Amino acid sequence: MVISQLIQPKSIAVIGASDNTTKPGGMVLQNLINGKFEGKIFAVNPKPVSFEGVTYVSELNHLKAVDLAIIAIPASQCLETVRTLLKMGTKAFIVFSAGFSEAGERGIELEKELTDMVNKAGGTLIGPNCVGIISEKYKGVFTTPVPEYDPQGCELISSSGATAVFIMESALLTGLRFSNVYSIGNAAQTGVEEILEYLDVNFDEHKSPKVQLLYLEQVKKPFKFLKHTTSLIQKGCRIAAIKSGYSEAGGRAASSHTGALATADNVIRALFRKAGIVYCSSRDELIAVGSVFQSKELKGENIAIITHAGGSAVMLTDALTSNGLNVPQFDSDKAATLLSKLNPGSSVNNPIDFLATGTAKHLGEIIDFCEGYDVVDAMVVVFGSPGLFNVKDVYELLDKKMSACTKPIYPVLPSLINAEKEIKQFLSKRRVNFPDEVNLGKALAHVYTSTKYRFEKTTLPEMDIVSVRSIINTAQNGYLDAQTNQELLAAAGIAQAEQLIISDKSQFE
Amino acid sequence: MVISQLIQPKSIAVIGASDNTTKPGGMVLQNLINGKFEGKIFAVNPKPVSFEGVTYVSELNHLKAVDLAIIAIPASQCLETVRTLLKMGTKAFIVFSAGFSEAGERGIELEKELTDMVNKAGGTLIGPNCVGIISEKYKGVFTTPVPEYDPQGCELISSSGATAVFIMESALLTGLRFSNVYSIGNAAQTGVEEILEYLDVNFDEHKSPKVQLLYLEQVKKPFKFLKHTTSLIQKGCRIAAIKSGYSEAGGRAASSHTGALATADNVIRALFRKAGIVYCSSRDELIAVGSVFQSKELKGENIAIITHAGGSAVMLTDALTSNGLNVPQFDSDKAATLLSKLNPGSSVNNPIDFLATGTAKHLGEIIDFCEGYDVVDAMVVVFGSPGLFNVKDVYELLDKKMSACTKPIYPVLPSLINAEKEIKQFLSKRRVNFPDEVNLGKALAHVYTSTKYRFEKTTLPEMDIVSVRSIINTAQNGYLDAQTNQELLAAAGIAQAEQLIISDKSQFE
Repeated sequence: MVISQLIQPKSIAVIGASDNTTKPGGMVLQNLINGKFEGKIFAVNPKPVSFEGVTYVSELNHLKAVDLAIIAIPASQCLETVRTLLKMGTKAFIVFSAGFSEAGERGIELEKELTDMVNKAGGTLIGPNCVGIISEKYKGVFTTPVPEYDPQGCELISSSGATAVFIMESALLTGLRFSNVYSIGNAAQTGVEEILEYLDVNFDEHKSPKVQLLYLEQVKKPFKFLKHTTSLIQKGCRIAAIKSGYSEAGGRAASSHTGALATADNVIRALFRKAGIVYCSSRDELIAVGSVFQSKELKGENIAIITHAGGSAVMLTDALTSNGLNVPQFDSDKAATLLSKLNPGSSVNNPIDFLATGTAKHLGEIIDFCEGYDVVDAMVVVFGSPGLFNVKDVYELLDKKMSACTKPIYPVLPSLINAEKEIKQFLSKRRVNFPDEVNLGKALAHVYTSTKYRFEKTTLPEMDIVSVRSIINTAQNGYLDAQTNQELLAAAGIAQAEQLIISDKSQFE
Repeated sequence: MVISQLIQPKSIAVIGASDNTTKPGGMVLQNLINGKFEGKIFAVNPKPVSFEGVTYVSELNHLKAVDLAIIAIPASQCLETVRTLLKMGTKAFIVFSAGFSEAGERGIELEKELTDMVNKAGGTLIGPNCVGIISEKYKGVFTTPVPEYDPQGCELISSSGATAVFIMESALLTGLRFSNVYSIGNAAQTGVEEILEYLDVNFDEHKSPKVQLLYLEQVKKPFKFLKHTTSLIQKGCRIAAIKSGYSEAGGRAASSHTGALATADNVIRALFRKAGIVYCSSRDELIAVGSVFQSKELKGENIAIITHAGGSAVMLTDALTSNGLNVPQFDSDKAATLLSKLNPGSSVNNPIDFLATGTAKHLGEIIDFCEGYDVVDAMVVVFGSPGLFNVKDVYELLDKKMSACTKPIYPVLPSLINAEKEIKQFLSKRRVNFPDEVNLGKALAHVYTSTKYRFEKTTLPEMDIVSVRSIINTAQNGYLDAQTNQELLAAAGIAQAEQLIISDKSQFE
């Protein structure tokens, strides 16, 4: 169970703290300090620690109860330490230390003892063998980068710490933002299901993040997983997940990495589909889908492609239309009106190609046209720079239109060298970029179809509980006759084919 | 026909030259100067041009014959200009100007006249409506970036100038290198087939680049295309291509962009397969495949995955094995020997996970093991940084091992933020990076299977030309009897089913 001390601690002790920021016990101190944790931080280590803003404690016994203990000491010392902390009243633990169930027999035992101890006390254990947690209140990880907390950013739950880091590194470069990050490590007590349960139960329509990205090697508790993901999605969340180890060899690799048991890929896909989770199979795909989630929602299948670069438009058209979306042709009269506002030679029959000479003003005309045209559900704007001129004004206009329009606009800004500065400026306005148009096209179609074709919530028929009970009570020796059976099914709201009860063969005729 | 003056000009005139580098006629001058073109550069414009290193010419008539004219003036003035230049003896032209066949009726006529004119003179015309050419001798483009010329780098041929620019921008960031770049624009006279013909006919085993990347919206001359791509591949080249516009809507978009006629995707796929071209459908995929090409060749299907980050290894295993490659388990004795050299808790049963605490020394041991182990055909090394320590020594070792090993080693360096500097250093040693393991896995498998399963060259039977001719000469009124027909087929080396000549129905029995 995830307790509030883990999420909103008032005090944190780092056991195995260090001045050396190349060690987990040093780096986490640095992250806590840089992250401006408002409570008290204690650095526990027999060796002196002189981190500014941190209270040094030489022996564990000198410590008073803290809400959260972050543990960065060898596995062999963890049990004794946690026992002492539990006695003091500390109930939330993040254990960085490796050497538990991932490391063989002795480690499995250690991990079990650790978990039992925390369970008995009604506490929460994150890890062991994890990189920690990033939340609004504190940055309890020993890794970088630590993304700036954005309440509308993605929540990331990962059973692999390094994978979480690699996802964040790539994602931050294209503007994806993050809120809470949970590295669950060996998930001895708290797995992805428990985190999802916490998010679901504590969901606040106004304050809670609305996007969850998951990296999993196993779904240990499929019913719990389904329950909370379905519930979160019904509350307005959007979830995408990688469940790796889907191939035979990959399953073996996952088993060796996190002890995951193999589950057939089609079972996982069905589970995801039932909940409405977008299935992903790479970090890049997860990031693209997360970036789609962070844009306005696509509510129809008709996409207008707006560009000054024809090749990108052709590739994007292929990607969209061969994955279930539509690039509709425009009414010729409507198109002619738009065409008259653009440079000669422009093409408006969707894709809209306003040529290399197209300006911010032209782009504005086109976006306004698409916003007002009911055939269009969303726009993709592909705009780079051949290096001749500055695209700052174009990107500024794009940003403004993205705010002003009710329809989603997805930006493909491919000039990662020529427009590096302008893209950074654009991203700084809380925007994402899809550098490759085909990756966007696939992600967009994937999100749309995953949502559109997800299984509807099963609605159970209304049941007349009183009648059901009273009918069952009439049963002699547990049996009901055919007629009463029909009454029972009817009382339970279960539709029945027309039936005729006969007691003799002759009644057939 | 591509003439040598286009590829190796001794003098270049820019018609419509400018001091203003935000204009094509200014930017191309800057690129020519920065690219250290060794011949003479003339800047032609009634308005004065004072670019350092350039000879200013105020009127076209004052110009003496140059090998190559780069034309950056309005379409309407191009015909007259080219006519004058042809009279002077200039035979190679790169026409940047838009407003030709892509711009309607009048443009189509203009383009035809222009092409006829150059054809009559036996000249070469690149474009119109292109961004130019980058070659060893000169950088005749009005765009940036201009990649440093690398004779072992990729040749890029693109029917879309902006797409060529966007490909280069993304590719350079992951270390892909380039040699010649051809933007063929409207391909009025010189299309991709003519460029391929030039590369094929002038192929020099020792000097010519061995990788070609193509962006096409149409294969106008499939037989010529097949002939030269097949020939280049037989000479040791590796070719990957995007043929966009494969969907119905995409075909419409391509038609509007470059006037391409739609071809069914399965026809293109068969054509590529016959030649041994790797089919790609996005810039990112083309870049990943190009990066595989620029690494040592994969000669078998067994891949060892070496990492300190388990999650990446699991995803990569999935990607490789579900796309036709193999991640073989190791012999347990062999594995035990390797394991003894690594930190406790490491896993060696492929993927080889040498943990977050793994060092450069460990990596060296593992690579040496794989290099010497016949079950392994290639290695992928996934190594990032959680931000705790510097990975410079690891990347330096990796670079050295990549040179020393006979087996290919593909690097996945995912820490684009934490190890930004170290990755740049690594790339500066003429290395590529595959930031996403799954993209590498798919590209690697795709290259391997495209090569493995390509159609064998059709070998024609030996033909006895003398007999064939003499048999045909015996023909009366153009007819041969059945017996002679058999002799003719035999002489032509064509296998026949056993035959019996009968002249009466009774002979059937």
